[in-house]
Amino acid sequence: MEVQIAVAKTNKYAVSESGDTLEVVERPNGGLSVVLADGQTSGRGAKAVSMLVVRKVISLLAEGVRDGAAARAASDSLYTDKQGKVTSTLNVVSVDLQTGTVVLTRNNPAPFFIARGEQVDCIGTESSPIGISRSVRPVISEIPVEPGLTIVVYTDGLVHAGERVGRPMDVCTSLQAMLEEQEPSPQAIADTLLAEAVRLDEGRPADDISVLVLKVTKRAGDDVRRMTVRLPIRGNGA
Amino acid sequence: MEVQIAVAKTNKYAVSESGDTLEVVERPNGGLSVVLADGQTSGRGAKAVSMLVVRKVISLLAEGVRDGAAARAASDSLYTDKQGKVTSTLNVVSVDLQTGTVVLTRNNPAPFFIARGEQVDCIGTESSPIGISRSVRPVISEIPVEPGLTIVVYTDGLVHAGERVGRPMDVCTSLQAMLEEQEPSPQAIADTLLAEAVRLDEGRPADDISVLVLKVTKRAGDDVRRMTVRLPIRGNGA
Repeated sequence: MEVQIAVAKTNKYAVSESGDTLEVVERPNGGLSVVLADGQTSGRGAKAVSMLVVRKVISLLAEGVRDGAAARAASDSLYTDKQGKVTSTLNVVSVDLQTGTVVLTRNNPAPFFIARGEQVDCIGTESSPIGISRSVRPVISEIPVEPGLTIVVYTDGLVHAGERVGRPMDVCTSLQAMLEEQEPSPQAIADTLLAEAVRLDEGRPADDISVLVLKVTKRAGDDVRRMTVRLPIRGNGA
Repeated sequence: MEVQIAVAKTNKYAVSESGDTLEVVERPNGGLSVVLADGQTSGRGAKAVSMLVVRKVISLLAEGVRDGAAARAASDSLYTDKQGKVTSTLNVVSVDLQTGTVVLTRNNPAPFFIARGEQVDCIGTESSPIGISRSVRPVISEIPVEPGLTIVVYTDGLVHAGERVGRPMDVCTSLQAMLEEQEPSPQAIADTLLAEAVRLDEGRPADDISVLVLKVTKRAGDDVRRMTVRLPIRGNGA
């Protein structure tokens, strides 16, 4: 098998800094975790919050702390730091090679999607952002790693896309349409969802948008781990 | 412009855990850094060392500490922890959007390559691994981010490939041959170098091997940041 993870990420229109932060960390007992946070508001302040949250979670995961405990710690830490005045959403997607499962930890009102083949389930269990109070708990789902599994997680920029002009995005329908096509790559899924959101926002995203897609394929290739990062730089080089 | 970074990474033959650790972190003032460490020996012990080093460097970079200072701190920290008995190589490749440069920080006897178009330079300035004494300094190079720039960094598994059977690898020649072809992607460069090393080791790598390629292209596309990770999982799911 092979787990493939793809991310597409853009900023709110006319804001140079994304309030979303996403990082990947190796798990000390095998596998990896992707941590995605969206700090309240946008621009520099939001970026500082989401970086704080992601750093906290990543450093705990690297020490072998379980995902749920890391999310609670990040919430308490943010609450203590900002006295409950600043919140952040948090999603952790972990491939745990010890248990052979994908562990999804979520403190985000935005739902996520699990697809097996072409069957798409929207998981929208109520879930609060972190930093809001002392009693925030994550919603945790654990799913066996098996070929055909696709998971889509995103920040609320995708949820709210098109609302300004009265044409909200229907992520589930878009995703279903894509999965009916021939084996879309996770990058193609992430790119298509992001492009649709930007189009609904008429080319000027009303918020930062990050889309994360995890896909498990059969594959009988080599044992090489691979990673690619693409960072566009505006004309002035800054 | 667009900066593209690609990594290909494999383990020593018959060792399930790679002693190399590689992680990417966003720089708080714009851009990103890739941190690659290769802990002495192989397997679980080496992994613990390289993770320690990478975590240390990443957490300092995330706080805005300069690359050279972060490398010195990681060296002192490893030296203090292991009393100079365990060393690690360290390479930090940073895209600094504030200065518009790529900053290469190196504590690794293995050289690295800078190519502009088809002109390839091998940078082999003497450089010691970290953790060896109290006075370890990194070798730092700073290069403007401009289209046509290609940088190749790797761990010593690539340097030593083929030595066992008396056919050592010539990275420079391989790289030059590739760059003469039509615009190879950074992933293609990393994959080809890694595949050649594995072939020289007769399919059984004598050491962990990681290859990191950074490439700057012209490109006039969208402003979307993208990332892909591919994690092969052996049959038993572990």
